[in-house]
Amino acid sequence: MQQSVDILLTNATVLTMDSKLSQFDPGAVAIVGDSIVAVGPETDIKNRFAPAETIDCAGKVLMPGLVNAHTHAPMSLLRGLADDLRLDVWLMGYMLPVEREFVTPEFVRLGTLLACAEQIRSGITTFNDMYYHEADVAQAAADAGMRAVCGQTIMKFPAPDAPAFEDSLAMARDFVRSWKNHELITPAIAPHAAYSCTPEILRLVTDLALEFDVPLHIHIAETAFEVETMRRENGMPVVPYLKKQGILEARVIAAHCVHIDTGEMRTLQHAGAGVAHNPSSNLKLASGFAPVPRMLEAGLAVGIGTDGPASNNDLDMFEEVRLASFIAKAASGDPTAVPAATAVLMATRLGAQALHLDAITGSLEPGKRADLILVDTSTPHNSPRFRRDPNNAYAQLVYAAKSTDVTDSMVNGRWLMRDGKLLTVDSTALAQEARAVAARIDRFLIEREKSVLSKLIALGGSMEAESFEVQVKVRVDDPESVVAAIQPPAIEVTAYKHYRQYDEYFHFEPETEGRLRFREDDLISENGDVASVRGRLTLIGQQREGQLGSDISLSRSRFLAPAAHTLRFYREYFLPSAMVSIQKDRRRWHVRYQDTEFFVNLDTVLQPALGHFLEIKSPTWSRRDAERKAELLAQLLALLGASKNEVISRDYVEIAA
Amino acid sequence: MQQSVDILLTNATVLTMDSKLSQFDPGAVAIVGDSIVAVGPETDIKNRFAPAETIDCAGKVLMPGLVNAHTHAPMSLLRGLADDLRLDVWLMGYMLPVEREFVTPEFVRLGTLLACAEQIRSGITTFNDMYYHEADVAQAAADAGMRAVCGQTIMKFPAPDAPAFEDSLAMARDFVRSWKNHELITPAIAPHAAYSCTPEILRLVTDLALEFDVPLHIHIAETAFEVETMRRENGMPVVPYLKKQGILEARVIAAHCVHIDTGEMRTLQHAGAGVAHNPSSNLKLASGFAPVPRMLEAGLAVGIGTDGPASNNDLDMFEEVRLASFIAKAASGDPTAVPAATAVLMATRLGAQALHLDAITGSLEPGKRADLILVDTSTPHNSPRFRRDPNNAYAQLVYAAKSTDVTDSMVNGRWLMRDGKLLTVDSTALAQEARAVAARIDRFLIEREKSVLSKLIALGGSMEAESFEVQVKVRVDDPESVVAAIQPPAIEVTAYKHYRQYDEYFHFEPETEGRLRFREDDLISENGDVASVRGRLTLIGQQREGQLGSDISLSRSRFLAPAAHTLRFYREYFLPSAMVSIQKDRRRWHVRYQDTEFFVNLDTVLQPALGHFLEIKSPTWSRRDAERKAELLAQLLALLGASKNEVISRDYVEIAA
Repeated sequence: MQQSVDILLTNATVLTMDSKLSQFDPGAVAIVGDSIVAVGPETDIKNRFAPAETIDCAGKVLMPGLVNAHTHAPMSLLRGLADDLRLDVWLMGYMLPVEREFVTPEFVRLGTLLACAEQIRSGITTFNDMYYHEADVAQAAADAGMRAVCGQTIMKFPAPDAPAFEDSLAMARDFVRSWKNHELITPAIAPHAAYSCTPEILRLVTDLALEFDVPLHIHIAETAFEVETMRRENGMPVVPYLKKQGILEARVIAAHCVHIDTGEMRTLQHAGAGVAHNPSSNLKLASGFAPVPRMLEAGLAVGIGTDGPASNNDLDMFEEVRLASFIAKAASGDPTAVPAATAVLMATRLGAQALHLDAITGSLEPGKRADLILVDTSTPHNSPRFRRDPNNAYAQLVYAAKSTDVTDSMVNGRWLMRDGKLLTVDSTALAQEARAVAARIDRFLIEREKSVLSKLIALGGSMEAESFEVQVKVRVDDPESVVAAIQPPAIEVTAYKHYRQYDEYFHFEPETEGRLRFREDDLISENGDVASVRGRLTLIGQQREGQLGSDISLSRSRFLAPAAHTLRFYREYFLPSAMVSIQKDRRRWHVRYQDTEFFVNLDTVLQPALGHFLEIKSPTWSRRDAERKAELLAQLLALLGASKNEVISRDYVEIAA
Repeated sequence: MQQSVDILLTNATVLTMDSKLSQFDPGAVAIVGDSIVAVGPETDIKNRFAPAETIDCAGKVLMPGLVNAHTHAPMSLLRGLADDLRLDVWLMGYMLPVEREFVTPEFVRLGTLLACAEQIRSGITTFNDMYYHEADVAQAAADAGMRAVCGQTIMKFPAPDAPAFEDSLAMARDFVRSWKNHELITPAIAPHAAYSCTPEILRLVTDLALEFDVPLHIHIAETAFEVETMRRENGMPVVPYLKKQGILEARVIAAHCVHIDTGEMRTLQHAGAGVAHNPSSNLKLASGFAPVPRMLEAGLAVGIGTDGPASNNDLDMFEEVRLASFIAKAASGDPTAVPAATAVLMATRLGAQALHLDAITGSLEPGKRADLILVDTSTPHNSPRFRRDPNNAYAQLVYAAKSTDVTDSMVNGRWLMRDGKLLTVDSTALAQEARAVAARIDRFLIEREKSVLSKLIALGGSMEAESFEVQVKVRVDDPESVVAAIQPPAIEVTAYKHYRQYDEYFHFEPETEGRLRFREDDLISENGDVASVRGRLTLIGQQREGQLGSDISLSRSRFLAPAAHTLRFYREYFLPSAMVSIQKDRRRWHVRYQDTEFFVNLDTVLQPALGHFLEIKSPTWSRRDAERKAELLAQLLALLGASKNEVISRDYVEIAA
């Protein structure tokens, strides 16, 4: 008695990617509803099952759909916007400003659908995303019929979908609650990275991930710079730091892991974390060569991802799979490293495991969801085919086949592509809509290219993102009385420096361009000698961002860069409409007050002779934090005996003018 | 008055790749016969020319056809035969044996046509080849309508198309004479590499290249091993060695150049040599990262090649172009290295220059041949397109576009593909023929896999190719009289060693399997101590290859490998049908006689006690050389007073049996 099934796929070269890497040629797969019920030799399967529909897969490989283990799908709309740039210039000069301006729920929906069209076309059935407005990513992916892990981004900086991390966290909670238990979508929490989250954020996101038992998706050790900074600031590499914050208690998906050591691999493996390796992105951004063979040896589930299409610039897993093998060989000097079968495994079953989805996808096995693709291997670039060794089949897929050889794709038992035709998305209409968005972004950037900021960015070098500060400045007549008041136990001094500062302000027309400050900082030692000199370039915005109480303001310094060139160079490069010099003596205390850190600057402006000023500042990351710090700042001003003094809301250069 | 032209291509995004990297959007190109007569803004070109045919290229990039600067086209038939292996195992265990067995003019023709189908499909209009039976490669390329530089391989080893290099050289001369001045084909001479050619061969091929003024195509510094060996044996790296042999007087096309220093770059640049960079192959075989940014800085014309499809495994220049950029970035740690425009330039105009064909192809300029392609950039993976910066167009091609986006290809004014349909080759029939060849190769290898040789190869490690030796062995009664006769000036001793050798011979059924010898070589110092021990594994063929005079034979030792494992391991791994032990004392002189080098072994076989033997040997590379050495060997035997002694044609193990 034959069992009834919905679909029988027959006459295929079946690569199951199961634990034995079973192959059947000719092989067949039987499907009922959303699931696979049987996989095996064709004759056996045909004998056992009576199908409603039979599909002949002659000349094709039938295999699990590919798992894209890390991406930022909506960034398809930013593909090719800016390339061949240093990471900081690319990110802070182009991606972040454009995202701030353009990323809306509609942008996210369009970008995700466009990415789905490309991903389905190239054999991807599951992707793991991290972006903003993630509920809209999830809806678009579900509409396209794809399986996805969707991670709502959370970080300490203002984001396109949230002015502060508290807002992102609230969005994430709503999102996870709404989408939990969807048949295609796994909602997730995505703290951006260790360096872009505070310990408090890391604790809160872990709690959320554990509360709802959803994956936690995070960038780990993508660049050597990240690891160096972490070691300098916290005395340990990234994975131990994250472990200390409790993150590894969640079901972690660790993107990149380019610069982790053997101990960190063991820690991740012990925590059951998955890893997403992103070959193209790591090459294109010159991040380095991830230690894939060692991670696999350590027993880690290493999947393969495309990363976002703005740093790749496509969503082609065939390219990534080939590169995963190529790079492992070249970086280790061993041509036997990451052989073809391993690379395919990483893109299927191991990738599903890395996303904590291996119970339902990643291989062709009875009981798993029917997530599968057909690949045409009869094209010239796939010819001929050798059959001497089972590995020949994987080598053909990895070293010769292209994503465009994928002809059919099924997710959860539903066809998303048949004979090269997309069934759930209209790629022509999407491409047309995308062109309109690109034209708007082009116009925005062409306008911006005329500005000082863009010229500053064009210089390259190490930039820092815009920072927000809570600050107050008052005039003081007797600076030494302030010095005397900086006293424990109320105020604890953690550092003290004495500077002579020579500032050159570049003014531009129109004033909305902001001002550029070139500062030479001479550090003065106790005996009055100049101990060291450094130059810095800062682009200062024109507006105060807001008032927090009557005297205290929230300001932003948009860009900061070490000044690697001479003052003459910058003058000739930026061609300011006017220049003003300010010379001052600055005593700078780094203090701790009420468990919060502040900078106290006591300035004597010497040139022009403007007198003495007390300035108190603290960087801030969120609205709530800013309000708390403003309150403390007012207390501090009182402690230093300066709460009644004249408040100065202008810069010295404005007073001098 | 408008000028009549044959074809006007209009409404395209024209990337000329000329010296100014001019772009026209919308642009047009006018063609008469085999050549481009005008390129420019569409309105301008439309005003000036009256075409017989106008082709609307809406939504497409019109650009020069890609130049594949280094390949072995017929190896398309060996694609995917053996992968993820060490270079020596891949080459000596699989490629060379299969080539020896299968490479015929018909194989070469089929393989080239299949490669042409793939290359045309992916936007390549010119390729630079190196293989055997090169006249057949040339004919197939011309039949497919492609432009090609075809280099007849010459090397010191026996080749599939020639038993000795003299034969290859004669073939090359005939080939060059017949094909010189063909409109599509540039015949060339291809000495395989410095290490696979003798100085004499290098001089002769240079003379031939200069006589006919054709390019000389050679592999240079592909692996670190090649450079180390060259330095050890000749005290200099590869480029100076080749310069010393005179090679750089010819118009050189240098493939790979992975391991060359700045001085070598300058030498190549000064000689006007072109370089072919092969990213996929260098990664897949773990050869290393070529110093492309430094070569470009040195002013070298660096093109991009696919290398042969057996080490890639495809002929996809879009992949190579992307990798050329990616690898340069990752290897230098600088994401601005080899930006997109440079990568496209390498694949077009610089590639043509590397092949010494820049006068006729590589860019869209009036007077050059009409070698061009159309690329559809409206697909999802190419969407959207930014236009803010001229570099956006190159970034789209390099980082997002795929070879399958190429829709049309023209070479020398003739369409080879229209709307994705190949016009000069029948790829379906070719793929079918290729399948039949692959099935035969599969059967051959499956048969071979049962053999000792293949098991030896399967072990991996450093293998050496089969070597031919001229040799004689005679019995001696008074070894010390031989020692006394090894005297200058006739015989100059260049080295002397004293060994105790412990041999274990593995016998197999049937005897055609050959014998495997595991040898422990104890080097004895002057005071009689064992100075060092090494193990070696040698597979010894059963047959003497031929007699050269009555006493002297030509023998071959097929494979030689350091024995990294224990005798027990090899015994259990190879499961010989019988084993025989031989222990002997060997005094070994490396001598020079009549400007030729010989090894003189004076053996005392101790276990079993067989007596004393004199053996004289010299490696040989060609028939002519073997005959000359046989003559010298007879003289040497006489000088050592052993010319009347009993000649032993059997191995000690055979005498012992």
